[in-house]
Amino acid sequence: MKPELIHQLQAIVGSKHCTTRPEDLHCYSYDGRSTGPLPEVVVFPDSTEQVSRIMQLASAHRFPVVPRGAGTGMTGGSLPVKGGAVMVLTRMNRILEIDRQNQIAIAEPGVITADLQKEARKHGLFYPPDPASVKFCTLGGNAGECAGGLSAVKYGVTKDFIIGLEVVLPSGEIITTGTRTEKGVTGYDLTRLFVGCEGTLGIITRLTCRLLPLPEARETFLVSSESLAATTTLVATILNNDVLPCTLEYMDRTAIGIVTGFMAEPPPENTEALLLLELDGTRQSVAEESERLQQLLASHPEFTVHKAATRDEAATLWQARRSISPATFNLKPNKISEDVAVPRSRIPELVAFCEKMAAELNLIVLTFGHAGDGNIHVNIMLDKSDPEQERAGEEAKKRLFEFTISIGGTLSGEHGIGTAKSKFLPLELNPATIRAMKGIKQLFDPLNILNPGKIFPAE
Amino acid sequence: MKPELIHQLQAIVGSKHCTTRPEDLHCYSYDGRSTGPLPEVVVFPDSTEQVSRIMQLASAHRFPVVPRGAGTGMTGGSLPVKGGAVMVLTRMNRILEIDRQNQIAIAEPGVITADLQKEARKHGLFYPPDPASVKFCTLGGNAGECAGGLSAVKYGVTKDFIIGLEVVLPSGEIITTGTRTEKGVTGYDLTRLFVGCEGTLGIITRLTCRLLPLPEARETFLVSSESLAATTTLVATILNNDVLPCTLEYMDRTAIGIVTGFMAEPPPENTEALLLLELDGTRQSVAEESERLQQLLASHPEFTVHKAATRDEAATLWQARRSISPATFNLKPNKISEDVAVPRSRIPELVAFCEKMAAELNLIVLTFGHAGDGNIHVNIMLDKSDPEQERAGEEAKKRLFEFTISIGGTLSGEHGIGTAKSKFLPLELNPATIRAMKGIKQLFDPLNILNPGKIFPAE
Repeated sequence: MKPELIHQLQAIVGSKHCTTRPEDLHCYSYDGRSTGPLPEVVVFPDSTEQVSRIMQLASAHRFPVVPRGAGTGMTGGSLPVKGGAVMVLTRMNRILEIDRQNQIAIAEPGVITADLQKEARKHGLFYPPDPASVKFCTLGGNAGECAGGLSAVKYGVTKDFIIGLEVVLPSGEIITTGTRTEKGVTGYDLTRLFVGCEGTLGIITRLTCRLLPLPEARETFLVSSESLAATTTLVATILNNDVLPCTLEYMDRTAIGIVTGFMAEPPPENTEALLLLELDGTRQSVAEESERLQQLLASHPEFTVHKAATRDEAATLWQARRSISPATFNLKPNKISEDVAVPRSRIPELVAFCEKMAAELNLIVLTFGHAGDGNIHVNIMLDKSDPEQERAGEEAKKRLFEFTISIGGTLSGEHGIGTAKSKFLPLELNPATIRAMKGIKQLFDPLNILNPGKIFPAE
Repeated sequence: MKPELIHQLQAIVGSKHCTTRPEDLHCYSYDGRSTGPLPEVVVFPDSTEQVSRIMQLASAHRFPVVPRGAGTGMTGGSLPVKGGAVMVLTRMNRILEIDRQNQIAIAEPGVITADLQKEARKHGLFYPPDPASVKFCTLGGNAGECAGGLSAVKYGVTKDFIIGLEVVLPSGEIITTGTRTEKGVTGYDLTRLFVGCEGTLGIITRLTCRLLPLPEARETFLVSSESLAATTTLVATILNNDVLPCTLEYMDRTAIGIVTGFMAEPPPENTEALLLLELDGTRQSVAEESERLQQLLASHPEFTVHKAATRDEAATLWQARRSISPATFNLKPNKISEDVAVPRSRIPELVAFCEKMAAELNLIVLTFGHAGDGNIHVNIMLDKSDPEQERAGEEAKKRLFEFTISIGGTLSGEHGIGTAKSKFLPLELNPATIRAMKGIKQLFDPLNILNPGKIFPAE
């Protein structure tokens, strides 16, 4: 990018909100998974109008623009793989309105998700999507990737809580989608097209979010068992018996092993798998569901059930769950972290497959995650300095995807495709479907300037 | 269309499933709202492959194809306004699978919605979307229009229960969208693009539907009041007090008047408005919500609350509610029936506006409908043989839309735009947004052969 273009960007956002210093560029060249090339410039707009003017400039001079929030993504969605400008939306971090009566929030994309949750709570409301990075990640990033999280089994994911958007198109045009109302069928549903588009179709500059009444009670249970198969089978059983936990997390023996130190009390010896389960709602409904759950489990002596006596104890359990991902690096220096999703009745098959594959390829593979919605995090641990292990890891990833698709699953439950999984897209989508998606990309971004090089396999 | 084309259509579907007899054509020239021109041919495919071959033929010879199910739509979506072929999908009426474990159904588009509900119930599950025409309308039509219904306040609308599709594009290509899993972010969300596209982007040939566990209990309440304003205000109050009814229907004095005959017991004299409210869930949770509701209402002496003692009594109340729409014709021979939606806290303003407008224009205007989600059915009654009334009716419709938009509402909550509201689209959507939607139409249907003349205002 020529200096003249940098000056024009500075003129739009103010010179202190536009940088080309190498140390700054470096900070915007990686995400939660990996590091990529440096951008040529990083620009921090503060308004929809500035975003629009930047895109007009990018259209006129055909430089790539990569929008991002906190960069906590897991598939390379925010990396400037084709150079150009990174557009950081964290200055647009205003919560513009909490409409208590209609249970709606209007917010800018740079709002940190936990900040919206905090603000909603003040009004007796809550915003359910809760990706692991909730304290850092932004609403815009969540919407771009359609982030999930722990509570999706009961409440759904980001797309279920975004009912309207303001979007700047690659041309700089500003459109609005959706409504402030629960129902709305005026024209095509563009909201869902932009939610989960991984920043490739438009830049979200305002979001209308649904909120829910804050649940008044909460109970946490730890269910341990010496049988992995029994535990993974229990997931569908619970959900088919009128118990709908707000979280239903599973961890295998390896995952338990690395986080036992975080637990106040280690699980019983010979534990092969754990379910961590939380109920929420009104006091009475939680009491009722809790009783139903305990009755159900009483008829299954293979499970040991422990109910957290206090909120502190529950917090310790969740701390253990959240520590799995970082703690995996105690096993090996590198990992391939996948977030496949399968119909939940097929979880036992998926987990058994992973165990068998790990043995065959001589790899450590751990499985844990959002069992309630079938979204299992498969972590393939390895040391990339060993070419043999790296090859085995890639082979494991390929086999995992193929098996997942064969049992009705999907490549990604919540992380997106980005650059990490683009070459596997044809495993799941037929050529006509990929052509349709590429047609949409071409329609909105004919110059291919907005977050190029993502989702679709290289030609 | 030349006889040669008709023969080719007959060759695809079999001659008895393709008709040009005038009496048959007539049957496919109207919907729930109005009558349009006759199609040139009506064709009844029985498989995705036949649908694909018909579209290939249509592409090659550029004749319009209008897909439809039962034709119960309210905005002209299924009318062949540009001639050509009507494609009736009612032969594709197989429920292919009920997956009890994962709470999913796979069905063809011609399945009658009530039939899916019945089948799901056998497995202890239910399919919540319940448009008034549930006993006649089809899943494909519901998906095309994103049909709503009475239970949307708690459960959402059709789009919330369709997680995957098979679609035949205008070119005849077959694509699949979405997943069988709760979570899935592989590529763009095309499912939502086709749900609610009013049959203009592709023909849905298979649907993956989410099901929920069947609620075990249900209670029905009738809340009457002498104050219209108090009643419409109560809607948001209920929902902000941890009571989430599965239906929360409202009717004004005029609506009550025309259906009193259907009620076992008429409402108290001087009743200005009614709320009809149903709770569902487990026995305990219904008991709990019921108590909370009754406590809330106890502090508002302006309301008279009556709880239906038996299922039969509840059924009578619902019969009264469902009879409003047909019974309106006892008032006047014609009506303009709109389904605007507003944020629910704005319902009192909308209803007051309608009352005032009716007085000013000397029209009978009644309001009733899905208060819980702000989707109010405004029926403007008139005698079209009187040009004066017809003019006043059109004026009322225009004023209604303008006011709705001004308070954050939308032109259509659940009926779609079709031909009925296309000229008002620019009231709600800015030119760039309409351009984006037209671009999508052009992308999927470059020859403009699939359900042409819908949604967008004529150039």
